[in-house]
Amino acid sequence: MTAPSRRDLANAIRFLAIDAVQAANSGHPGMPMGMADIAEVVWNDYLKCNPANPGWADRDRFVLSNGHGSMLQYALLHLTGYDLPIDELKRFRQLGSRTPGHPENHVTPGIETTTGPLGQGLANAVGFALAEKLLAQRFNRDGHAIVDHRTWVFLGDGCLMEGISHEAASLAGTWGLGKLVAFWDDNHISIDGNTDGWFTDDTPKRFEAYGWNVIRGVDGHDAVEIKTAIETALKSSDKPTLICCRTTIGFGSPAKAGKESSHGAPLGKDEVQATRDALGWPHAPFEIPQDIYAGWRGRDRAGAEAEWNTRFAAYKAAHPEAAAEFERRLSGVLPAGFEAAADAFIARLQQDGPVIASRKASQNAIEAFAPLLPELVGGSADLAHSNLTLWKGSKSVAGNDPDANYVYYGVREFGMTAIGNGLALHGGFIPYDATFLVFSDYARNAVRMSALMDVRAIHVYTHDSIGLGEDGPTHQPVEHMASLRQIPNNDVWRPCDAVESAVAWKAAIARANGPSCLVFSRQNLAHQARTDAQLADIARGGYVLKDSVGAPELILIATGSEVGLAMQAAERLGDKVRVVSMPSTDVFDRQDAAYREAVLPKACRKRVAVEAGVTGFWRQYVGLDGAVVGIDSFGASAPADALFPHFGITVERLIEVSNAL
Amino acid sequence: MTAPSRRDLANAIRFLAIDAVQAANSGHPGMPMGMADIAEVVWNDYLKCNPANPGWADRDRFVLSNGHGSMLQYALLHLTGYDLPIDELKRFRQLGSRTPGHPENHVTPGIETTTGPLGQGLANAVGFALAEKLLAQRFNRDGHAIVDHRTWVFLGDGCLMEGISHEAASLAGTWGLGKLVAFWDDNHISIDGNTDGWFTDDTPKRFEAYGWNVIRGVDGHDAVEIKTAIETALKSSDKPTLICCRTTIGFGSPAKAGKESSHGAPLGKDEVQATRDALGWPHAPFEIPQDIYAGWRGRDRAGAEAEWNTRFAAYKAAHPEAAAEFERRLSGVLPAGFEAAADAFIARLQQDGPVIASRKASQNAIEAFAPLLPELVGGSADLAHSNLTLWKGSKSVAGNDPDANYVYYGVREFGMTAIGNGLALHGGFIPYDATFLVFSDYARNAVRMSALMDVRAIHVYTHDSIGLGEDGPTHQPVEHMASLRQIPNNDVWRPCDAVESAVAWKAAIARANGPSCLVFSRQNLAHQARTDAQLADIARGGYVLKDSVGAPELILIATGSEVGLAMQAAERLGDKVRVVSMPSTDVFDRQDAAYREAVLPKACRKRVAVEAGVTGFWRQYVGLDGAVVGIDSFGASAPADALFPHFGITVERLIEVSNAL
Repeated sequence: MTAPSRRDLANAIRFLAIDAVQAANSGHPGMPMGMADIAEVVWNDYLKCNPANPGWADRDRFVLSNGHGSMLQYALLHLTGYDLPIDELKRFRQLGSRTPGHPENHVTPGIETTTGPLGQGLANAVGFALAEKLLAQRFNRDGHAIVDHRTWVFLGDGCLMEGISHEAASLAGTWGLGKLVAFWDDNHISIDGNTDGWFTDDTPKRFEAYGWNVIRGVDGHDAVEIKTAIETALKSSDKPTLICCRTTIGFGSPAKAGKESSHGAPLGKDEVQATRDALGWPHAPFEIPQDIYAGWRGRDRAGAEAEWNTRFAAYKAAHPEAAAEFERRLSGVLPAGFEAAADAFIARLQQDGPVIASRKASQNAIEAFAPLLPELVGGSADLAHSNLTLWKGSKSVAGNDPDANYVYYGVREFGMTAIGNGLALHGGFIPYDATFLVFSDYARNAVRMSALMDVRAIHVYTHDSIGLGEDGPTHQPVEHMASLRQIPNNDVWRPCDAVESAVAWKAAIARANGPSCLVFSRQNLAHQARTDAQLADIARGGYVLKDSVGAPELILIATGSEVGLAMQAAERLGDKVRVVSMPSTDVFDRQDAAYREAVLPKACRKRVAVEAGVTGFWRQYVGLDGAVVGIDSFGASAPADALFPHFGITVERLIEVSNAL
Repeated sequence: MTAPSRRDLANAIRFLAIDAVQAANSGHPGMPMGMADIAEVVWNDYLKCNPANPGWADRDRFVLSNGHGSMLQYALLHLTGYDLPIDELKRFRQLGSRTPGHPENHVTPGIETTTGPLGQGLANAVGFALAEKLLAQRFNRDGHAIVDHRTWVFLGDGCLMEGISHEAASLAGTWGLGKLVAFWDDNHISIDGNTDGWFTDDTPKRFEAYGWNVIRGVDGHDAVEIKTAIETALKSSDKPTLICCRTTIGFGSPAKAGKESSHGAPLGKDEVQATRDALGWPHAPFEIPQDIYAGWRGRDRAGAEAEWNTRFAAYKAAHPEAAAEFERRLSGVLPAGFEAAADAFIARLQQDGPVIASRKASQNAIEAFAPLLPELVGGSADLAHSNLTLWKGSKSVAGNDPDANYVYYGVREFGMTAIGNGLALHGGFIPYDATFLVFSDYARNAVRMSALMDVRAIHVYTHDSIGLGEDGPTHQPVEHMASLRQIPNNDVWRPCDAVESAVAWKAAIARANGPSCLVFSRQNLAHQARTDAQLADIARGGYVLKDSVGAPELILIATGSEVGLAMQAAERLGDKVRVVSMPSTDVFDRQDAAYREAVLPKACRKRVAVEAGVTGFWRQYVGLDGAVVGIDSFGASAPADALFPHFGITVERLIEVSNAL
């Protein structure tokens, strides 16, 4: 028996994809059929990984940016011996399987990032490659290259049409991420058909304009050409590489190859058989012959990790502290002293009571926490001096400093956020990003992906309301607090003073399984007095900041800059009024029922919420009998001091509304 | 007295900007100072406009994509004689002025589009240029070029870093928009400083890759070089042009020119004086010498319109029907017969009762309405056969067909939406765009801009819930209905059957002063019976679909695919139950209090809302005593039939929750 050919090995991918899609009666066979030959070469000859240990720190990262071709990746994971048995492939796209419609990082071993929303996988990959560069700068020592891996990413035409491809590729070029290798599945077909009508870019030229190493004209069905291209890519140490692979979507299907009909639907029973005949694959669905398994699994993949383990042991002997820190960083555990130091900082703030903008308080928190957290790496989308994201220890990641930790993202909110997701997913980093709250819109789906992927990412959004002032309605968020809060698993914080700001930062840093949006003011905010118990309760998302004498007859609920107004109004409304500061409704909603009842007793129906934003959101806390003071229109261009009265966000209005209940 | 030099004319822009920013103590002087010389040439030698009639149909369109330099545009409008007196410039960035911080189309005569959110102005400009091309194709006749104008757009580095610049420029290249001329303000400075650290693209090469005509290396302070470049641009009939202008931000300021310190803050009193001295501008703030006014206003700008009026009269004589249609199209008035035809179509649907997916119902509505509405131009972001946006009369705008009306946008949701905004703002079009509901995220800020600009744009979002099925959580919206509803002035519709779908389309078409999001299902939806009165009430956003016998003891509120569930549950819950179908909460909320009370009487507190999405939103309708059936987590990959029970969106659950109240 002769060893299977490369094409045979690739055909195993093709038919696992074809048959799984057919069984599910749903899915995308065309891309796996088109990219199987490329994937076979990358995974069999280059990709450094250990299927027995998907979490090995120095593995190569593989990203399927065109995630609709998920069966390509599931086939690869299965064939190379990851914990993804054939039964899971048979359950493709079924409830509870490990083979969902698009790859999900938290569901399937070996999936590095969740893809499907086009273009974001490329940005994640740029984040992975940046993470590798930064960890290498930080931890490698002479003779000890313990961080040395590549990031491989597959891209479709759709990824390259998306704007985020521009943002991510531009930064990758600027940063010279030489270990990033991208494969463009140049099949000239997107869902609407031949791309001639809507995608006429000279993509190689575009990527050259970003400073990439571009390898043109590779036959994506010729393993020799693919290997030659990869060898060239591996010689590019200071530029990311784009390998342009001319492929045929649905390769092997007599009737559907090269056509959009192979893209997003099962081939159909007859065409599946015709493809079997055409490619000489006589095996039954989900039946992989032993020689094919041997061709995939016979390679010593685990050897690379074993060899690395030996090298890491030597590193550990020579540099024990660095090794321990490396292990801590990759584990995601915070430094031992962090929590106590953070609490001490917060307690001191409560005592000192600075009256500053919460964006400034945020910067102070970064200044206090970042020296303790070398894993904190972030930056702003060209608003460093407005978002106040720079701190004394900031060093640009564009350079080679071992302590590099600051990212000048340029005006690229979406790319920034998705790159941050990549940094977090890689391991070793807690990323933060920043822009004006209103421009969270530009990053919206990447914020969603942070939450969907359970990623510890920190999104810093300043200029949180009409308090932004003169820049006007294009720059004034009104609906953004409410709309960010709608994203599941996303903790949104809008602190009322420097103390709550620091608590929010601490909570975001400690939250290992999901993102936080930290929303800060441009303008100064009053300091609020608190008992120790109140101080501790900030972390519960909502708490009684000023209590009534006896049971409350009226409850004022406020966030951020409006807490000060609520406190003043309460002062004038009398001692039956309770004020609840609610910096994070998300966190508050997770508290047990007894705590929530203690803060917002059901019996008290006279409730007024105040927030300089849309009002409907707050009805869930004030009910049909309460009232909300806010803004249900767009803002206006004027000094902030003129805007709050103009839109009726005042102490007087709060009192008036409260009295009218 | 000699005539003022070009530089003197440009300096008038500079000092109006400098002094207005100084007076406001807020704003962006650097860009107007840097682009004043370019603007002076464009506006004095090329821009076809009539300050006395900013609405003239065949005017050139000017777009300031780097909208933070708003004072440049206000200065130009003032100097050329638009209705923007000097007192308005003195009130820059003050409440109620016509000179807000960023240009706003609905506030200031002569402002074509609202800019500030970077990159979108370029996409709007592509929409303007596409509009011109389509109107020319449709209305020009031999010897009668009544549509023949250009679109001029100013771009900053920030616009070019944004991903949307990629999407918009790529499409402009594909469409060969030869009358689009863009000026890149290549000043090498963005807010964080010298762009070397984060913007290293070879931008000219990038735009060549899009098929643009690129003119490199123009000195943006040399009127002769600028003119030469423009003359070259005007010869490019089949490609858009990018003129790369090397400029100095803050030009003329001795201490701040070429530095980011001139970008976003007043120069300061001393530096203002130093700049006066350096540029030889002895005049007091807001004082423009008569010879400068004469230099700007002495030109016969109105002549172009007068000449056009003569030509249009000739056209009208030769082609009266086309001329009348042209005038109707530009006025934004719908065709006389439209409303009656739409109502007849809707009445027929109510009778026929098709059980189809609402996305299919949407396509049927397009099929019915589009033949009556040649102004309806739209398309999908590469999901035509999923969004069902194509109809029998669809003809690609990429060609030269006079009836061209369909846009193959490719996978470019953000660019698509902002280009649509441009089409609407130009006049003559009702644009629609389409993608999956979940990818409205990618377009989010352009949807916001539709609303902020009072634009009649129709955003079609299909696959509206977990009903999308196997593609999984990356593709399943859960928070999107709630979060789109947060945008002020945005009407969101989620119809429950083919009838409501058609009513939603009719409402969106009729809504002249704002956008609508039409949200449709992938899966089939039951038909609902209605009386004539109920049929009429759909347009009110929410109405009683099934009433209780006597006052309701329980109200079920539902949208879209969940209306059918609510109807079944009501059937089993007994005759004291009312079902309210609420296809558009936005529209319902605008109804008078009596109507709202009639639908949702305050006295009835047993209320259950059901929608396959996040629940918090619905608390504003059900209150603290009601309940909401929905999904507060991300979805999952499985057939839709498995997902609804999995997430508890069922008749049984509705009954259980209702009984538990």
